[in-house]
Amino acid sequence: MNYSPKFPVQWLPFMVMVLSILLTGISAGWTDIPRLSPTRGVIIEHPDFLSSATVSDLRTFYYPQTLDHFNYQPQSYATFQQRYVMNFKYWGGAKKSAPVLAYLGAEGPLDGDLTVIGFLNDNAVRFNALLVYIEHRYYGKSIPFGSREEAFKNASTLGYFNSAQAIADYAEIIMHIKNKLRAFYSPVIVVGGSYGGMLASWLRLKYPHVALGALASSAPILYFDKITPRGAYFSVVTKDFREASETCYQTIRNSWSVIDRIASQPNGLSTLSMIFKTCKPLKSSSELKNELENMYAVAAQYDRPPRYPVTVVCGGIDGANEKQDILDKIFAGVVAYKGNCSCYINPPTNKSETDVGWRWQTCSEMVIPIGIGKRTMFQPEPFNLNNFLQECKSLYGVPPRPHWVTSYYGGHNIELVLHRFGSNIIFSNGLRDPYSRGGVLENISESILAVHTVNGSHCLDILPEMESDPEWLVKQRETEVKIIKGWMAQYYADLKAIQIKP
Amino acid sequence: MNYSPKFPVQWLPFMVMVLSILLTGISAGWTDIPRLSPTRGVIIEHPDFLSSATVSDLRTFYYPQTLDHFNYQPQSYATFQQRYVMNFKYWGGAKKSAPVLAYLGAEGPLDGDLTVIGFLNDNAVRFNALLVYIEHRYYGKSIPFGSREEAFKNASTLGYFNSAQAIADYAEIIMHIKNKLRAFYSPVIVVGGSYGGMLASWLRLKYPHVALGALASSAPILYFDKITPRGAYFSVVTKDFREASETCYQTIRNSWSVIDRIASQPNGLSTLSMIFKTCKPLKSSSELKNELENMYAVAAQYDRPPRYPVTVVCGGIDGANEKQDILDKIFAGVVAYKGNCSCYINPPTNKSETDVGWRWQTCSEMVIPIGIGKRTMFQPEPFNLNNFLQECKSLYGVPPRPHWVTSYYGGHNIELVLHRFGSNIIFSNGLRDPYSRGGVLENISESILAVHTVNGSHCLDILPEMESDPEWLVKQRETEVKIIKGWMAQYYADLKAIQIKP
Repeated sequence: MNYSPKFPVQWLPFMVMVLSILLTGISAGWTDIPRLSPTRGVIIEHPDFLSSATVSDLRTFYYPQTLDHFNYQPQSYATFQQRYVMNFKYWGGAKKSAPVLAYLGAEGPLDGDLTVIGFLNDNAVRFNALLVYIEHRYYGKSIPFGSREEAFKNASTLGYFNSAQAIADYAEIIMHIKNKLRAFYSPVIVVGGSYGGMLASWLRLKYPHVALGALASSAPILYFDKITPRGAYFSVVTKDFREASETCYQTIRNSWSVIDRIASQPNGLSTLSMIFKTCKPLKSSSELKNELENMYAVAAQYDRPPRYPVTVVCGGIDGANEKQDILDKIFAGVVAYKGNCSCYINPPTNKSETDVGWRWQTCSEMVIPIGIGKRTMFQPEPFNLNNFLQECKSLYGVPPRPHWVTSYYGGHNIELVLHRFGSNIIFSNGLRDPYSRGGVLENISESILAVHTVNGSHCLDILPEMESDPEWLVKQRETEVKIIKGWMAQYYADLKAIQIKP
Repeated sequence: MNYSPKFPVQWLPFMVMVLSILLTGISAGWTDIPRLSPTRGVIIEHPDFLSSATVSDLRTFYYPQTLDHFNYQPQSYATFQQRYVMNFKYWGGAKKSAPVLAYLGAEGPLDGDLTVIGFLNDNAVRFNALLVYIEHRYYGKSIPFGSREEAFKNASTLGYFNSAQAIADYAEIIMHIKNKLRAFYSPVIVVGGSYGGMLASWLRLKYPHVALGALASSAPILYFDKITPRGAYFSVVTKDFREASETCYQTIRNSWSVIDRIASQPNGLSTLSMIFKTCKPLKSSSELKNELENMYAVAAQYDRPPRYPVTVVCGGIDGANEKQDILDKIFAGVVAYKGNCSCYINPPTNKSETDVGWRWQTCSEMVIPIGIGKRTMFQPEPFNLNNFLQECKSLYGVPPRPHWVTSYYGGHNIELVLHRFGSNIIFSNGLRDPYSRGGVLENISESILAVHTVNGSHCLDILPEMESDPEWLVKQRETEVKIIKGWMAQYYADLKAIQIKP
């Protein structure tokens, strides 16, 4: 273990993050892909969101991780340094078999998560828990092959970058920590959000000997194959806006054909560029439409207190002068959401690690087939699996395996399968989150539980507790803590019973 | 699917099999390895063991299997033809969601198993079941890389040869069959023996959406790391012999030092070669001792009715003239066991597919650390993990991963882990089987059950039913069938409840 007293915290400011997400929608051949991006982790909106954890309590370690857990070729034995961070401050210790809360990193560097994932820090005292945060392979400082450049070179180096390997990484590191600390009987609860939430639930299912339970926040584990209707995501976006304001919804709904009409006129793109104060002249109307679609999607996905972005956007749209043109109203919504900027659409930006990494992941394993169906406030845009496969293949040389997630982890008939199998998973969701439709929304058994809130948004429950939290959010978190306490109580009782046995 | 009306049945006669097992113990550097061999599948002792299945009911198919399920490198996408065999004769059909009994091939070609694994054929009518038998990758006709020569070339081609890949193969083929037959709701029970029994229990644990339950016969899933005492295997061999005959046990126990004494004399090896009628002159006393050790081990492991090999060996030893030398008595035991042969030790033999394949498997993943402790009828021979790792590395260029099985599948504190996780596994064992000590011998939960018989041997319960079966064996099988029927009844009730739901 390497002890590193300080770790770099690279904040991803909200605006840059959103804009970089939007950027990925530009490439004409990728019209279906931007739909997937809203899963990208937790976005920092307000600096006061930062948890009270003092950075000095966190210690960084590196584990020499096996490159390929499921293959015995010589090159599979290569190792890379995988980063994990621990906070011992609140831990009750190995002798008491005090618990471990382990956050499983998702599709980005770990740095941001350390203070944003409030659930660990907020509950450390309640559980006397050791806090562990583990970075996902191929992100942040956990890069195989010595460098990002080498690791992302082609499918031969990217081939090891998938969820089964990542979950095995997490299992190995958790076992390593428990062995090192001689905390053999400390129960481990794994926590994750969004893609990381999927990993948490799957780790509990695949490695019950490593994790006693999982809190899977906003984990759309059923948004694969055709389990969830492909149009569900944008149906919820639409619902969120319509519930916020019928006129706002109508305005957005009517705006697309107006954009198309103007775009088809001579100098139409220049006109649109002016109306929306674009940073670069538009090359196509779909550039604009993709960015708007994504803005609405992100606003809905993260429609959380105290700001409630959907209300903000609709406030802009509805607040515009009644006599203004429809696109001026839309632009007023953009300004309301993004604030005062020198320009709004097509801003210069760099691709983030998440953009690059998650694109590979969606193009190999995590094929989440989101399209836009009829009866939304958007123009229909069905997900075309064949096009998707072709585009991925042309990009990486290898096609995705779109059915592997459900082959390896299941998902079809989940109630029938897990009603009498497995235990100790919380699937938490906020129903305003469009991804919630791909989540588990009903209890499956006595301990595979769905905890959702009507007004909640993506991963809201695992963000830091705040004074301003609404009561329903406070209650949701209390429910989750109570459930986990129940698992632990039962575990300690079982442990005692077994240790007493002759 | 390729339809092949006939399949080749390559019988491995008992003697050749045993002798080929014994052969593997000769190489001086591998003194610890022969201990592992007794796990090698079911040995055919009597031709009348063949099940009543008529070969014409069996249809052979091939599935284009993915080489590496857990990697997205271009070469991972290569496929090989994996063989599986089906018997539709008794199946109730997809409309009735009639069940599937799926036998998971172990460390050998599938051919022998088709009629030896009586459990499927004997229970097909009871369950109206579709029978499926799937061959393990790298055995029989399921060879990647186009040829055995290529597949077994080195660690680069052998790297894909491991249990996680094999279980994923089985899962994919079972899902493929269900899709092809539109038998989406047919419950699947996976059945396996010995190593194949481990695979069956692990498949149920890792892929509950693929298999409703598992019958894991004589699966020593706890003979890894230090969960089971390393000397347990040969302690049971000793117990079996001692229970059969105290004098026999004493004779065997005293024989080793006599062999050593004679071997150390001038021309001692010639003397031993003459006493034991070896096929080739002995080069060392350990050649002889390894073969005897293995004979006792195999006799104990397969100490089953109606022959009861331990009794046969002891009959020979005890039946010898009281005045005969101790080694003449031992030789009388060898003759009693092996019958009339022109020679007895060191017979010419070829390495079987199992010898070659299982050696790789034990040298990469399936590190079963069996040694000989004190207080047995053998000379102590502790398992030396470091030597083992070194020997494997020098053989294949890559070292084993001795802790991976327990990392991926668990095993430590199994009662604590699975008491409230998972369901529907029968761990069946016969306590005369030395491997039973590495099996699950106590119920873990209401549906993870241990079914064992005091007088049973290795995989006895899944062999074909015979008129001469003792009552305890008949009862064991009845218990297993009753348990599986219970799982199915519950499943169909759950299915009905879910399908009725609005």
